[in-house]
Amino acid sequence: MSLSLYYAPGACSFVAHAALELAGADFEPVLVKLHKGEQRSPEFLALNPRAQVPVLVDDGAPITQIIAICLHLDARFPQAGLLPVSGLARTRALELLAWMNNTVHPTFTHVFMPAKFAADEAAQAAIKAQALQQYRGLLAELEAVAAQRPGAWLGGDRPGVIDAYALTLLRWGGFAGIDPTTLPQTWALAQSLANVPAVARAIERERLKLNVYQPTAA
Amino acid sequence: MSLSLYYAPGACSFVAHAALELAGADFEPVLVKLHKGEQRSPEFLALNPRAQVPVLVDDGAPITQIIAICLHLDARFPQAGLLPVSGLARTRALELLAWMNNTVHPTFTHVFMPAKFAADEAAQAAIKAQALQQYRGLLAELEAVAAQRPGAWLGGDRPGVIDAYALTLLRWGGFAGIDPTTLPQTWALAQSLANVPAVARAIERERLKLNVYQPTAA
Repeated sequence: MSLSLYYAPGACSFVAHAALELAGADFEPVLVKLHKGEQRSPEFLALNPRAQVPVLVDDGAPITQIIAICLHLDARFPQAGLLPVSGLARTRALELLAWMNNTVHPTFTHVFMPAKFAADEAAQAAIKAQALQQYRGLLAELEAVAAQRPGAWLGGDRPGVIDAYALTLLRWGGFAGIDPTTLPQTWALAQSLANVPAVARAIERERLKLNVYQPTAA
Repeated sequence: MSLSLYYAPGACSFVAHAALELAGADFEPVLVKLHKGEQRSPEFLALNPRAQVPVLVDDGAPITQIIAICLHLDARFPQAGLLPVSGLARTRALELLAWMNNTVHPTFTHVFMPAKFAADEAAQAAIKAQALQQYRGLLAELEAVAAQRPGAWLGGDRPGVIDAYALTLLRWGGFAGIDPTTLPQTWALAQSLANVPAVARAIERERLKLNVYQPTAA
């Protein structure tokens, strides 16, 4: 029984990374240097032909997709409380996880990598501008969710994968010129999460600065 | 204990619709006419402020997001086999479900509603063209997955939510000029699923034609 996580600092793989630490799992972290194109190496493509992090390798089986990895780890470490255990609380957490994954996250992809969506530069600029506005709106929605959270954390009384995703999405906002302190509930949540010792280990390993916003870049 | 499903014919709500029928659930189907803007009515926005189908209402609690609805129904109707029960088989199914939901589905959205991603028309045309090419590639990936399916169905020996999503994504391809019969494994899977009596009830209620491809539209 062995676990390895292929991750890139600050990428969405942080959600899986934090989950493993929160679960107290014994795992091997494997850094993938995206800026050096390591995700396109034959070794990595053998794990994930889509050339994306994260990949969790569980006893030789590579598992991709944040949601599948979160649910896999939740089933493997049921005591960790990575998601609420059952009922409507669990469904609400999954609803939020799915929305982060299929709406908020890809909207940032349009800001960060518009070339994925159109070949010509004018179209890319138009895509980026529209996505940035949408991303502001989505973080405002997330702020409303954080303001009404059912406990100290988004899922209730234990920190879990939706908190780690919220931290990641808010942090990305900083790169896009969105000051995280203007979203006080989400910012407080991210700061609290960063202070949970298990999560602090993941942050230290990835050498993440929580607030990357630079006023001049706005 | 009451269940209602707000759906639109042929939309991704078909996945939830098929799931309810496969589970043998007693539910009230509620048709939302998207072309008449009913998703923007005050009544519907009270259920889902994001103005999207599907919404599953379980004892008064509105639940959105395909993935959350699928997992909610899977927990509520464990005997239905909507997803493989446990282990790597379940993780693989969730991996596929997440990929359909965060990659294949939104790529079609770029083909179908490019205005969501850029304001000017030239940019929209560029987005649509690139997304259509990507969608062809993604359906080819799905075809490879279908060719290697672990049983008669994508999750093994019982039809479930990933099969219903595959049918939906393949069917949408037809609107985009992709002939489903050129993807024989996925097409055979969709036809088999349409013949499962529970799924046939959902198809009949939505009045869906399985193959909407028109050679002249290609």
